[in-house]
Amino acid sequence: MPRRVGDGRPYRGRMPYFDAASAAPLHPVARQALLASLDEGWADPARLYREGRRARLLLDAAREAAAEAVGCRPDELVFTPSGTRAVHAGISGALAGRRRVGTGLVVSAVEHSSVLHAAERHAAAGGAVTEVPVGRSGAVDPEGFATALDAGTALACLQSANHEVGTEQPVAEVAEACRAAGVPLLVDAAQSLGWGPVEGDWSLLAASAHKWGGPAGVGLLAVRKGVRFAPQGPADERESGRAPGFENLPAIVAAAASLRAVRAEAAAESARLRGLVDRIRARVPELVPDVEVVGDPVARLPHLVTFSCLYVDGETLLHELDREGFSVSSGSSCTSSTLTPSHVLRAMGVLSEGNVRVSLPAGTPAEDVDRFLDVLPGVVAGVRERLGAPATPAAAPAAGSGSLVVDALGRRCPIPVIELAKVIGDVPVGGTVTVLADDAAARLDIPAWCEMRGQEYVGEEPSERGGVAYVVRRVA
Amino acid sequence: MPRRVGDGRPYRGRMPYFDAASAAPLHPVARQALLASLDEGWADPARLYREGRRARLLLDAAREAAAEAVGCRPDELVFTPSGTRAVHAGISGALAGRRRVGTGLVVSAVEHSSVLHAAERHAAAGGAVTEVPVGRSGAVDPEGFATALDAGTALACLQSANHEVGTEQPVAEVAEACRAAGVPLLVDAAQSLGWGPVEGDWSLLAASAHKWGGPAGVGLLAVRKGVRFAPQGPADERESGRAPGFENLPAIVAAAASLRAVRAEAAAESARLRGLVDRIRARVPELVPDVEVVGDPVARLPHLVTFSCLYVDGETLLHELDREGFSVSSGSSCTSSTLTPSHVLRAMGVLSEGNVRVSLPAGTPAEDVDRFLDVLPGVVAGVRERLGAPATPAAAPAAGSGSLVVDALGRRCPIPVIELAKVIGDVPVGGTVTVLADDAAARLDIPAWCEMRGQEYVGEEPSERGGVAYVVRRVA
Repeated sequence: MPRRVGDGRPYRGRMPYFDAASAAPLHPVARQALLASLDEGWADPARLYREGRRARLLLDAAREAAAEAVGCRPDELVFTPSGTRAVHAGISGALAGRRRVGTGLVVSAVEHSSVLHAAERHAAAGGAVTEVPVGRSGAVDPEGFATALDAGTALACLQSANHEVGTEQPVAEVAEACRAAGVPLLVDAAQSLGWGPVEGDWSLLAASAHKWGGPAGVGLLAVRKGVRFAPQGPADERESGRAPGFENLPAIVAAAASLRAVRAEAAAESARLRGLVDRIRARVPELVPDVEVVGDPVARLPHLVTFSCLYVDGETLLHELDREGFSVSSGSSCTSSTLTPSHVLRAMGVLSEGNVRVSLPAGTPAEDVDRFLDVLPGVVAGVRERLGAPATPAAAPAAGSGSLVVDALGRRCPIPVIELAKVIGDVPVGGTVTVLADDAAARLDIPAWCEMRGQEYVGEEPSERGGVAYVVRRVA
Repeated sequence: MPRRVGDGRPYRGRMPYFDAASAAPLHPVARQALLASLDEGWADPARLYREGRRARLLLDAAREAAAEAVGCRPDELVFTPSGTRAVHAGISGALAGRRRVGTGLVVSAVEHSSVLHAAERHAAAGGAVTEVPVGRSGAVDPEGFATALDAGTALACLQSANHEVGTEQPVAEVAEACRAAGVPLLVDAAQSLGWGPVEGDWSLLAASAHKWGGPAGVGLLAVRKGVRFAPQGPADERESGRAPGFENLPAIVAAAASLRAVRAEAAAESARLRGLVDRIRARVPELVPDVEVVGDPVARLPHLVTFSCLYVDGETLLHELDREGFSVSSGSSCTSSTLTPSHVLRAMGVLSEGNVRVSLPAGTPAEDVDRFLDVLPGVVAGVRERLGAPATPAAAPAAGSGSLVVDALGRRCPIPVIELAKVIGDVPVGGTVTVLADDAAARLDIPAWCEMRGQEYVGEEPSERGGVAYVVRRVA
C-alpha cells in the first residue's frame, strides 16, 4: 500500500495536492525524527556538556546519512538553512575560490531562480555570465555546454532535472566536459535528490529537504575535496564556515532521516508515479483540444508533468482547479506577480498560456489522477468559453492575399492569442495577421501558437502605436 | 509552580541545565505550535491554492505576533534562519543602504561574535570600523559611544545586554545619541528579547528564537520604516527580499507563539530568577576563595551570572561540573578552540581563568541553584589541588628588594598565574617577579591577578627567550 499523502485522512473527502515540486508534504519519518530530536537536539552541538554532546552525536549521524545518500564524504557536506541558501553559498564560494582563474560563470538558461539570481548578482559585480540555451525539450546539449567553457570560466552550474517541466539534464556528460576543461560543476539537485544520487563527476551539489518530504529550514551543500572554495560573508565557526548560524538540528535530523526513507521507497514509487504521469501525458491531449505537453517524455523526473492550454489564462485555470480540489502550479505570466511568463518555458520556446504543472507527491493514489483527468476537460472548456476562445481551428483556407491588423494593446495573456486565432481564417492563405500587443507573454505564445497550428511566424517589428507588432502568415 | 525545564522529568535524577544563554530548552508552547503547524504549514505560502493560503495565514499571524512583541510594524519585520543571519543581513543591508554617507561602522567591543565577524568582513572590504570600549562592568559609556559617531558613520551596533556577563547596555541613551547624529542603531537583542521589548528609539533589531525557548532555525530582523536598507546577496522574492529561501514556517509559528508565551511569564519569572542569581552572586565569593564575580550587579539580565576562579583551568572545571550534573559554559581560553580568552572578558579587563557562566532557563527550581552552590566549592578546590595552586595568599612580606624570573613558556592557562602566585612571597615588598609566558590568556589574567591581590602590574616587555615578559611588583 502506498502511504497516504497530506494529513493522512482517507481518500474520501481528501483534497489531492499536486505541487510536490514546490514543497512535498512532510514524510512520516521526518515527522517522527523531528519529534524525537526536539528533546535530544535543542542544545548547542559545540558545547562539551552532555546536552551538547548528545546534539553533536545527532548532527554527526545526520551528516553521515545525508552524505551517504548524496554520495560524498561527511566532511564534504554541510547543512544550510534552505536549498536557496545552499545554491547561493555554493556559487559565491566556488567563484571566490577560483577568482584567479577568472570571473566566468556558465549556467543553463533553465536553472532555478536561486541560481539565476546568484548569476545576476555576479554579473552586477562585474562577473561574466554565459547562459547555455536549451532545446524544445528543456535539456541542454552537452556539446553546446562544453563550448561555453573557456580559460576564464570559474564555475559552471547545471540542474539535475528541471523544476518546471521535469526534463533531466545530461549531468554526467556535462560533468565530464567540465573536468576536461578544469572547471568545477555545481549541480542543483533540488528536484531529483529524493529519487536517487546524481550521476557523474560533479564538484558541488545543492539540495533542499522540503522537496523530498523533509522539513523546511534545511538545505545541503556538498563541496568535493580539492575544489577551491572560499566562503563569502562574515566568518563563522559552524558547518566548516560555510553556513553561519546555530544549527537547525531537529530539522536536520528529520531531513536526513526522511532522505534515507524516501530513497528506500524510491525505486518502487518512481516506477508507479512514472506510470501515472505517462497516463496524464497520454490522456490530456486526447481529452483537451489545443494542448501542448512539454518536457522530455522519457528522460524526466518520475512525478512531474507540465502542459499548456491555448486560449486559457493560468490564474483562472488554477483557481478553478483549486475549487475542484486540485492544488497545482503554473508558469503562466497571468499567475505570477512579475507579469512575465516562466523563464523556463521561454527558454524552451513553448506555449506559456494556460500552463499547468502537476507534480505528484510520493504516495499519490491512482484515483486522484483519474479524477483530475475527469475534471480537467470541463474546467478548461469553461475558462475558454468565458474568454470567448475559438472553439475549432480556423476556417477552411481561402485563396488570394491580404492582411489584417489586430489591436490587443493593453490586453493580457491569453487574449492576444485568442484574437489572432479568431481572425486567421479571415485572411487568405499567403496573407498575414499582425497582432499589436504589449503583454510579455505574447512574444512566447504567438510563435508557439503558430508552431501548434502549422502557421508561419514571420517575426516581430516595432509598433508605432506602442507595444510590439507580431506578424503571422497564414500557410494552412 | 514554575514549569519544569528540559525533558520534563521530575527533579530527582534530573540534570540541571544552566546554559540558557547558548540555547534554551524548547518551551512547551513552542513544541505545541510546531507540532500543530507541521500539518498546516508545510506548503509554500506564495502559492494561491488552499494549502498555500493556509501557510500564508500562519506566516502572517506569526509576523504580527512577533512584531507586537518587538514593538514594530509587521511589515518592518522579517524572519531569518538564525539570529546570526539576522545580524549579518541587518548590518550588510544597513551599511549598503547608507553607502553614500560613508563606510563607518561603530560597534561596542563586547558584541556577539556575529556582529564582530560582520565588522571584520566590512573592514576587510575597506570599511572603517570603530570599537567602543567598555568599563570593568562590561557596559559602554553613552558619551563615549556618541564620540565615536561622525559624519562618515553609516551604522552603529549595540547589544541590548551582554551574552557572557549579562550586563545591560544603555541602549536608550545610545539610541538618542545616534538619532542626534543621524546614524541608525542596530540592536542585537538576542539575549534580552524574551524578557521584554528593547527600550529606546532603535532603527534595526535582531534576535534569535532558540534563546527564548523557541526552536532553532528562526531569527528575526526588524528594520524601521525610513531606514535606508539595501539587502545584499542574490535577489529573492521572499521576506521582502531580506531573507532568501523557502520560509521555515512551522518553526516560525513556534517561535512567535513561544515569544508571546515567555513574555506572559516574564515579569514573575525574571523576578524569581533575579533572586536566584543574586544568591549565586553573594554566595560564590563566600564559599570559594579567590573568585571574581563579573558584570554589573544590578543593570543585568535576570538569569545570568559569570564568575572567574583563580588557579583553575576552565576545561577541567566544566568537565568536573558536568560530572556533577551541571551544564555551564566558560569564556576561559582553555575551553575554546581558539586558545584565546573571551573577547568580552578581555575588553572588560577581568580575570578569564576558571571562568564559569551560569544562565538559568525559565523554570529553574531553587533547589538546583542550591545544589550548585553545594557542589562548586569542592569542585574548585579539587581542580586547584591537582594543579598545585597556592592554597593561601602569598606569605607575609619581607623587607628589602630583589627580583625573580618565572619561566612559564609553553605552559597553558592557569599555570603562568599559579607560578606567579607561588613565588610572589619569595621577593621582598618593592621587588619584582617577571613571568615569561606565551599563552594568550596571561596578558589578561596576570594584570587581573594583580588587581585581585593588590599587587602592582608594571607592564609587559618583549622576552628574549620568546613569548612575553610580564612584570609584577610586590607592594603588599
